[in-house]
Amino acid sequence: MKQTILCLDMEWVLTPEIWEEVSKNTGIQELMLTTKDIADYDELMNYRKVHLDKNWLTLDKIQKVIWTIDLLPWSLDFIHWAQERMQVIILSDTFIEFAKPLLKKMWNPTIFCHNLIIENNKIVDYKLRIKDQKTHAVRKFKELNFKTIAAWDSFNDTGMLNEADFWFFFKPGKKATDAFPSIEIANDYEELKKLIERSL
Amino acid sequence: MKQTILCLDMEWVLTPEIWEEVSKNTGIQELMLTTKDIADYDELMNYRKVHLDKNWLTLDKIQKVIWTIDLLPWSLDFIHWAQERMQVIILSDTFIEFAKPLLKKMWNPTIFCHNLIIENNKIVDYKLRIKDQKTHAVRKFKELNFKTIAAWDSFNDTGMLNEADFWFFFKPGKKATDAFPSIEIANDYEELKKLIERSL
Repeated sequence: MKQTILCLDMEWVLTPEIWEEVSKNTGIQELMLTTKDIADYDELMNYRKVHLDKNWLTLDKIQKVIWTIDLLPWSLDFIHWAQERMQVIILSDTFIEFAKPLLKKMWNPTIFCHNLIIENNKIVDYKLRIKDQKTHAVRKFKELNFKTIAAWDSFNDTGMLNEADFWFFFKPGKKATDAFPSIEIANDYEELKKLIERSL
Repeated sequence: MKQTILCLDMEWVLTPEIWEEVSKNTGIQELMLTTKDIADYDELMNYRKVHLDKNWLTLDKIQKVIWTIDLLPWSLDFIHWAQERMQVIILSDTFIEFAKPLLKKMWNPTIFCHNLIIENNKIVDYKLRIKDQKTHAVRKFKELNFKTIAAWDSFNDTGMLNEADFWFFFKPGKKATDAFPSIEIANDYEELKKLIERSL
């Protein structure tokens, strides 16, 4: 009868990838790159900053684009389903300044994420709230005597996933399932609901 | 530029006191008693159980009563205001089985609370998730590098309140303000918003 916190990634699990949508919407190809292309996150963010500057893409312009992004179909329905049965906390490495418009569309669920550093409407840097925040958060939830369930698309966050009592792949790529063949897969929210229900 | 978690009590701050409303609605006077009358919580809960049994008041009947309880006026508006500016987590010593109908009216914000033990629809016991959960929760939020702000009506939760970076009284009684004369007081949500804004 332990209470549960469901930990969800935001991008890919509930919303599209923000940088990808901004790239598509603005036509700035360089913003399409991810950690798959530039593994070092700091280097990737510097690369993005250079191309934001080059294109005069200020924070308010980016936020306007983010406002146009739709949630993934049925994700709001899924969140409501989950919130009626357990606590839901989004653990994301996005920045609160980017996430806000999307969170509002989700009726503002709780999110733990990071910050951008803005000067004169320009993104000059970013600030991780703490390093490896997802792992730390899941550990703290467990210390507060919550059962933790995580649904993720990839296995980048191995620290966090190993910490969770249960974790599942949500629409994972082949690389993820090859690396973790024993982890159960949900290909849509209905399948995810079933895996979660079984773990409560 | 630290991100903030606003910790709120549920009863009195956002909703009426549940046991009091159940007492009024069912006419069972004995359910009006609180820890002010029977200081030992375990003793109080045993007393309540005796009178629930005596009156055949099962969980589903209590939940039906709770469904009829309105949120405090403007509390939903206040929650939305707060959720757009920071993370909001309700820290309450209520039971999730009681809180659910009220949470639904608040669009299911995150809550950390306790459990009832139910057998055949009858409340047979309760289970604290962990002892002194509020203090522990605030401490963990701080360890995750959040600023913590708490708004409370009383000073029972001294452990938690001392742990928070900022705390305020919300519509406190005289006993509370006498005990903590230096703590700032909000008499309504507009005043509370101002105190919170100043602490961000």
